Amino acid sequence: MLRRRITKAGLSSLLVTHLSDVRYLSGFTGSSAALAVTRRSARLFTDGRYKTQAAAQVIGAQVEIVTGPPAIAAVQWLAAQPGAEFAGFDPAHTTVAELARFRAELPSKLRRTFLTALTAPLVEPLRLVKDEDELKLVSRAALIGCELFEHILTMIRPGIREVELAAELEHEARVHGAEGMSFETIVASGERSAMPHGKASTAQVPRRGLVTLDFGIIREGYCSDMTRTVCLGKPKAEERTAYEAVLEAQEAAVAAVAAGVSCGEVDEAARSILRRAGMADAFSHSTGHGVGLEIHESPRVGAGQKTRLQTGMVVTIEPGVYWPGKFGIRIEDMVAVTQSGGQVLTPAPKALIEL
Amino acid sequence: MLRRRITKAGLSSLLVTHLSDVRYLSGFTGSSAALAVTRRSARLFTDGRYKTQAAAQVIGAQVEIVTGPPAIAAVQWLAAQPGAEFAGFDPAHTTVAELARFRAELPSKLRRTFLTALTAPLVEPLRLVKDEDELKLVSRAALIGCELFEHILTMIRPGIREVELAAELEHEARVHGAEGMSFETIVASGERSAMPHGKASTAQVPRRGLVTLDFGIIREGYCSDMTRTVCLGKPKAEERTAYEAVLEAQEAAVAAVAAGVSCGEVDEAARSILRRAGMADAFSHSTGHGVGLEIHESPRVGAGQKTRLQTGMVVTIEPGVYWPGKFGIRIEDMVAVTQSGGQVLTPAPKALIEL
Repeated sequence: MLRRRITKAGLSSLLVTHLSDVRYLSGFTGSSAALAVTRRSARLFTDGRYKTQAAAQVIGAQVEIVTGPPAIAAVQWLAAQPGAEFAGFDPAHTTVAELARFRAELPSKLRRTFLTALTAPLVEPLRLVKDEDELKLVSRAALIGCELFEHILTMIRPGIREVELAAELEHEARVHGAEGMSFETIVASGERSAMPHGKASTAQVPRRGLVTLDFGIIREGYCSDMTRTVCLGKPKAEERTAYEAVLEAQEAAVAAVAAGVSCGEVDEAARSILRRAGMADAFSHSTGHGVGLEIHESPRVGAGQKTRLQTGMVVTIEPGVYWPGKFGIRIEDMVAVTQSGGQVLTPAPKALIEL
Repeated sequence: MLRRRITKAGLSSLLVTHLSDVRYLSGFTGSSAALAVTRRSARLFTDGRYKTQAAAQVIGAQVEIVTGPPAIAAVQWLAAQPGAEFAGFDPAHTTVAELARFRAELPSKLRRTFLTALTAPLVEPLRLVKDEDELKLVSRAALIGCELFEHILTMIRPGIREVELAAELEHEARVHGAEGMSFETIVASGERSAMPHGKASTAQVPRRGLVTLDFGIIREGYCSDMTRTVCLGKPKAEERTAYEAVLEAQEAAVAAVAAGVSCGEVDEAARSILRRAGMADAFSHSTGHGVGLEIHESPRVGAGQKTRLQTGMVVTIEPGVYWPGKFGIRIEDMVAVTQSGGQVLTPAPKALIEL
């Protein structure tokens, strides 16, 4: 599959340095590695710290332990293969400095021409569509997220600090087998809920008001991501109105998810409802993004995005509204694209919970 | 200070996209931002999610909220400034794809010449040497690390899972005001201790054997990092011998830390002791690295590194030995370079603890 793509792109080989891609292709989870793929073979380069781990994890590639940067060793190995002509590299995950360094290490006759920036990613399209094993892992991570949410509901009370809630979530995540969180846990209460990315702070949850919890775990490498907004005490009329609008928008976008539908159409399903509710300006971000080995993957579910959903993709659907100095609301599910539409992977309650 | 460097580098302005640099220069902690610095002014670009946060955090720069990528807006703004000629960008933190995109957005007469790769970093040298406020923050983070270690000692017992220990560490970190961990917590017990980067797994701590704990917190943006290896039950003779050698190497390297000494000399202080002990091959990584807003910063404390330590730098000293299939040992402190030598910021006990 990958080799066919390499050939089709007019390349003799591929340099893979983005660690999620390396993991996807080889199974290796270490923090320092490069994978070199030719039409005939594949070789994973890593350093001495990972000797034992690489031997245990890597499938489908030879392992070579190197003392210098693995990517440089990979480039040199690729250049030394018989018939080496053009090696593709990923311009989105290669810095200008790295490329200069790679080129400096090549024999002069290959220096200018050998390393070729891919015009389109070769590994990402493979990762975009999850196979059955991956879908199981993503679903499992998502379900654990739901369990954590149910648990944290019992802890939210006036006076508790946002970081205490984050700590409890993260502790429970570990107990449920998470390797870690997929991003910095967001617990944004009261006025802080108006910050879409309000990381848990030492602020105390107020007696009355909204609390947005946005969190995810990593389990066996795969990420989860979900958001719920709950209310301490009775919601004000404007809070309830906004909540209902966001929920309607969120459910409309979830319902729009299906193979063949463009990401822009899914975004518009949510956005049009908030526009009609007069809240278009308050919805200041995209509707969602892909999730898998990385917390933010393709496709982007945003206005005008033409990528069409395919069976096996997993995206978040997370519209929100934010009024600085007042409050904010966001509701987010992970949704898998199946042959019969969108399947919600995070089936936690979405009706407004009053605590 | 920065403006002088910009002028000295023959530039009219600087594009800052690396988020730790943006934070260092402007105070902004959001996950999407670019800072444009000219000889006269500075402007921070971010997106709508961070409107409230940017207004509250940014010092010394105007804030502009943009709908597209902040870095593109920053490049366009820089190109529109009077006298715009050369804008430096950081090739180590700019991808090949980003640079192509930036250039595509420039007016054609500026396309080829305007964006200039820095030949040496401009912000990193400022960050390398911590000022008094930064040293306080780093020390505070390091001391909390020590408290967490003291706490976790009471929990380590045969049968407990490595992830449970990690969960407890991370929970306590939050309770102590951490925003999160500075890297994925390493708890490697028994044979797993032979993996220098053995992230906490579901493996149970054995009745007898070594456990390596390597962890760090982030507090007010600054990272801590420390490692201790403890023993369940009585250590075997070879474990004790190796531990004593690593400890001697670690203490020798700590003692070597002083302004004016090269990083290579500090590395050699540790390495020569392990070499004499016949363990050179088992010490498969560098002695340490800088720590600050990022967990891995310059300088690298490795073999042959010529960078000279300066007062105000903070580095880790963390030699280790690893025998796959058997065991491993690592001992790590954070050390600040002061006018009178190295000051250990992580004063937790280093004599072999038997539990």
